[in-house]
Amino acid sequence: MKCDTLAILGVGLIGGSVALAARARGLARRVIGFEPDEKSHMRSLALGIVDEMAPAPNSSRIGAADLVVCCAPVDRIAGLIEGLADRAKPGTLFTDVGSTKAAIVREVEADLPPGISFVGGHPLAGSEKQGAEHANPRLFEGRLVLLTPTQRTNPAALARITAFWEALGARVQSLSPDEHDRAVAMTSHLPHLMASALAGVVPTELYPLTATGFRDTTRIAGGDASLWSGILGQNSGFVLTALELLCQRLGDFRQALEAGDRERLLQLLEEGQRRRQSLTRGN
Amino acid sequence: MKCDTLAILGVGLIGGSVALAARARGLARRVIGFEPDEKSHMRSLALGIVDEMAPAPNSSRIGAADLVVCCAPVDRIAGLIEGLADRAKPGTLFTDVGSTKAAIVREVEADLPPGISFVGGHPLAGSEKQGAEHANPRLFEGRLVLLTPTQRTNPAALARITAFWEALGARVQSLSPDEHDRAVAMTSHLPHLMASALAGVVPTELYPLTATGFRDTTRIAGGDASLWSGILGQNSGFVLTALELLCQRLGDFRQALEAGDRERLLQLLEEGQRRRQSLTRGN
Repeated sequence: MKCDTLAILGVGLIGGSVALAARARGLARRVIGFEPDEKSHMRSLALGIVDEMAPAPNSSRIGAADLVVCCAPVDRIAGLIEGLADRAKPGTLFTDVGSTKAAIVREVEADLPPGISFVGGHPLAGSEKQGAEHANPRLFEGRLVLLTPTQRTNPAALARITAFWEALGARVQSLSPDEHDRAVAMTSHLPHLMASALAGVVPTELYPLTATGFRDTTRIAGGDASLWSGILGQNSGFVLTALELLCQRLGDFRQALEAGDRERLLQLLEEGQRRRQSLTRGN
Repeated sequence: MKCDTLAILGVGLIGGSVALAARARGLARRVIGFEPDEKSHMRSLALGIVDEMAPAPNSSRIGAADLVVCCAPVDRIAGLIEGLADRAKPGTLFTDVGSTKAAIVREVEADLPPGISFVGGHPLAGSEKQGAEHANPRLFEGRLVLLTPTQRTNPAALARITAFWEALGARVQSLSPDEHDRAVAMTSHLPHLMASALAGVVPTELYPLTATGFRDTTRIAGGDASLWSGILGQNSGFVLTALELLCQRLGDFRQALEAGDRERLLQLLEEGQRRRQSLTRGN
C-alpha cells in the first residue's frame, strides 16, 4: 500500500508517528503536515517528520493528498474532515485515529462528497507523552488498529487503509463503530477515568510513600486532560455503563470490608487475579 | 550493621530478597530460612538464598538467631513472632515486613519477653510476582522502608534495624503504626483494590482490545489474592475511608458525564493530570 502524498492533520505524537513510520517504510513519496499551531511547523520540519507543513484547517494543499489521516482531538475530527473533503481530489481516502468512533463516523458519513472515501480508525497505541517530539516510527509495530467500516464504506477504501496500517507493522481488526465504543469504554476509557480519580484523591504529601503500584495504576492519569475530556464526553453513554459496573464492584469490596467477610474479600481478589493473570501479553 | 545469624521467617519474594541482599553485602555470617512448606527447602538452598532451612514455626533453631525478619502474610506475623520469641536468646531483635502495622505491633508488643526487641517494618518494594525464585538482592536499593516504633520500642533496636535496611541500600523513615496504616491505605491498598475491581469487571473477551493503559492500571491485580485479602482485611478501617473518597470522586465524574458538563469533566481530569505529573520519580 503506497500513496503519492500523505496528509497528516494534526502533527502530534500519533500524527507524527504515522508520518515517520510511513516515511521510514517508503509508503509515501511526500508527507504534508497540517497544523494550526504555526510555531510547531519548524519543529516538525526540523525533526524530519514531514516534507512540508501547511496551516490547517483551510489549506488548499489538501488537494495534493491521496491519503489523509486525521489525528486531531476527537471533538474536532468530523468538522475538520467535513471542511476539507470538498477540496480533496476524487479518489482521496480520509481516515482518523480518534479514540471514539460512533459520533465521528456518523457525522462524517452524513456529509461525504462523491468520490471521497472515509474509514474510521483507532490505533491502540499511544503514550501519556504528547507532541511530535515524542513521535516514534515504530509506535504501531505489533499494535492493534481498529477500523470501523459501516454499510456505507467503500470496500476498496477499507482494503486500502487496512493495507496501509499493516505496512506500518500493525495488526488490523474491523468492528462496527458502536461495538468499538462499547469495547473501549471498558478497556481504555474506564481505566483512564479510574486512574485519574485515584490520582485525584491521593494527597501529594503522601507521594513519598508511594511505590510502583501507585505509579503504574495512575500513569495514564498524566495524559492530556483536554484530549481525554473530549474522549470521555463523546463516549459518555458507554463510559457511564462501564463506570456503573466498576462502582458495583467497589460496593462489593466495601460490603466485604465492612462485614469483615474475609472469604468474600478473598473471592473478589481471586477473580481479579485470575483474570489479570490471563492477560499474557507482557505485564 | 552486621549480625551473626539472620533468620528469615517465610522465604518468598521479600524474605528471599532480604536474605540474598544481606549475604551479598556481607551483613550476616549465616542465614537460616524458616518455612513450613518443606518442599521449598531444597529450592531455597539450591538458589543460594540461605545456608540452612528449618521448618517453621516450632524450630528451636530460632535460638541461633540474633536478627529475625518475619516475612509471613500479615495475618500470621504476630502469632509467629509470639510463638518464637520465648525461644530466642536475649538481645535478639525481631522485625517484620508486613504491609499493615497497627494490629501487628499492638499484638507483638503486648506479649514480648524481656530481653527481646521488636520493631515493625514495611519495605515499599515488591512485585506482583511471588516466590523465592524471583528474589533479588537489589530489590531494596533506593526503596523506602517504613519503620513504626512506639513508646515501648527500644531505641537501640530501632537504630540497629535502621542501619540494617540502610546497609541493604534502602532509605528509612519512621512513623507511628497508625500513621503508617492510614497512609498506605491511600498509597498502596486503595490502588490494589481498585486495580482488582477493574480487572474484575473488564470481560476477558475484550482483552485483545486492551493496550498499555489497561495493562498498567491492572498489573498489581495479578498479585497474590490471599496475601491481599489479609492486608485489606487487617487495615479495613482506613481502607474503607480511602474507598469512600475514591467513590465520591467517581461520583463527581458520573455527574459530569450525565450532565454533559465538559468543563467539570476537564477540571476533574486536569486535577488528576497535575497531581500525577508531580510524581517525578520515573513514570
